[in-house]
Amino acid sequence: MDFLFEFEKKINLTEQYLSKYFMENDNHQKAIYEAMKYSLLSGGKRIRPVLTLSCCELFGGGEEVMPFACALEMIHAYSLIHDDLPCMDNDDLRRGKPTNHVVYGEAMALLAGDGLLTRAFEVALTNSELLPNITVDALKLLSAAAGTEGMIGGQVIDMESEEKDIDSVTLMTMHLHKTGALIMAAAKIGALIGGATKEDILKMESFSRYLGIAFQIKDDILDVEGNEELLGKPVGSDKINHKTTFVTLYGIEQAKKMLEDYTLKAIEVISEYGEKADFLKEFSNYLLSRDR
Amino acid sequence: MDFLFEFEKKINLTEQYLSKYFMENDNHQKAIYEAMKYSLLSGGKRIRPVLTLSCCELFGGGEEVMPFACALEMIHAYSLIHDDLPCMDNDDLRRGKPTNHVVYGEAMALLAGDGLLTRAFEVALTNSELLPNITVDALKLLSAAAGTEGMIGGQVIDMESEEKDIDSVTLMTMHLHKTGALIMAAAKIGALIGGATKEDILKMESFSRYLGIAFQIKDDILDVEGNEELLGKPVGSDKINHKTTFVTLYGIEQAKKMLEDYTLKAIEVISEYGEKADFLKEFSNYLLSRDR
Repeated sequence: MDFLFEFEKKINLTEQYLSKYFMENDNHQKAIYEAMKYSLLSGGKRIRPVLTLSCCELFGGGEEVMPFACALEMIHAYSLIHDDLPCMDNDDLRRGKPTNHVVYGEAMALLAGDGLLTRAFEVALTNSELLPNITVDALKLLSAAAGTEGMIGGQVIDMESEEKDIDSVTLMTMHLHKTGALIMAAAKIGALIGGATKEDILKMESFSRYLGIAFQIKDDILDVEGNEELLGKPVGSDKINHKTTFVTLYGIEQAKKMLEDYTLKAIEVISEYGEKADFLKEFSNYLLSRDR
Repeated sequence: MDFLFEFEKKINLTEQYLSKYFMENDNHQKAIYEAMKYSLLSGGKRIRPVLTLSCCELFGGGEEVMPFACALEMIHAYSLIHDDLPCMDNDDLRRGKPTNHVVYGEAMALLAGDGLLTRAFEVALTNSELLPNITVDALKLLSAAAGTEGMIGGQVIDMESEEKDIDSVTLMTMHLHKTGALIMAAAKIGALIGGATKEDILKMESFSRYLGIAFQIKDDILDVEGNEELLGKPVGSDKINHKTTFVTLYGIEQAKKMLEDYTLKAIEVISEYGEKADFLKEFSNYLLSRDR
């Protein structure tokens, strides 16, 4: 298997579906669609939809997962728009481009985020060709992961930790919610739709929990050692904002060790699926070595 | 039928379900639940859930509609929180109390809104006891009504109309989206879950379209003639903000005439259901004569 070729293929498929879901409704409310597309269709690593698709394929599924994979990406995009707003992180730059509110103003950015969140559910509901009970089960996972017990809950912990020293348990809890919840939902929804058993879904949860933590540790390392041009945003912002990260808490060497450990643990979980899991193994290693 | 007794009963039922859906998850993310409850459980006329329930009852349904009725109210509550934010209408007072961001800060209010929107879908998905295909169909209506082709789309038109004179068509389009979409979704979802035929659902759409417009005209009239204490917010804000309303466009007398006309039209549509529609008829008249 040529990993990068397969990865590129999955990214392209994601882009195609995302564009498709946005074409039909380009009407008189043009302004907000433009703002939504600006954040949704302008790059991004497409980690979540690719993970959803490949976890679905692991259990024999395929493109029928795409409405849900795209819904996950829309929720990710909305969370970035709201997170960048002046009342939150007040960031001007993302992926090398001005953030949504810098281009469209705060009010429109707020509504574009609301619109993407709502549209995520609409896209999945409208385009799903699954049995209705599977659609409902998948959306239960999605709404729980995106909500106050998931991603939003993580944001709250993040907000309340500002300018504070937090301990390792709080840091882990925060990231398991803020980043982890959506990554875990991607893996579980993919597996569910692919036809995985309950036991398999639990394994994919375990796999993606390790992957989600590794992903965040890598983010923290990149904020120290990354290349600004590749990242498309300034490095060192965690330090400037006095944020507790895996690097500030454990030091850069230990953080790198943890990144490797968690990646290995993730790969170990899916190893029992043999060759079928090759893409996911390479994907895990790609996330470890990525430079953006 | 004692209308006010029945109305009160339906409001109480709504409050009970709303509280129930918020009890289980009162955990360590306490801060955001407090902010969400502040806006969701602090008064409000409960127009949408009562409409959902009574349209469901019209076709023989009952409490099985409550997860959806509550979802509608949560979406309404989120829209008010975001609408009040400084970057939007910048309102300090609602229902006689400080708005969400005044109490909890902008960042928390933003997240509380996001949380309520997400929770709306989660509550409906998790608590629905309907056949999965009905759950999916009801949520399709909900997401479409709340999204960029519905409520959010109306917000965009509203935003783009600021400090501008707009014509009657734009005004009507704006309100059919901003207020109308959710009111129409309430009626249609209620009817759908109650077991209405497609034809019946179309009738309920027609009924609630008239009702939604009447509701907005009444709002515009109250902003001129209403009692600040009863309304819980300052009157005259439309004039101060140079907003085009049914009153500025048609004059107060003509607006009152339109309010009566649209209410009559709404009642006419449901008259064919005979006595079973008595509550909805009285409800329509109540909305016409309300003082808040």
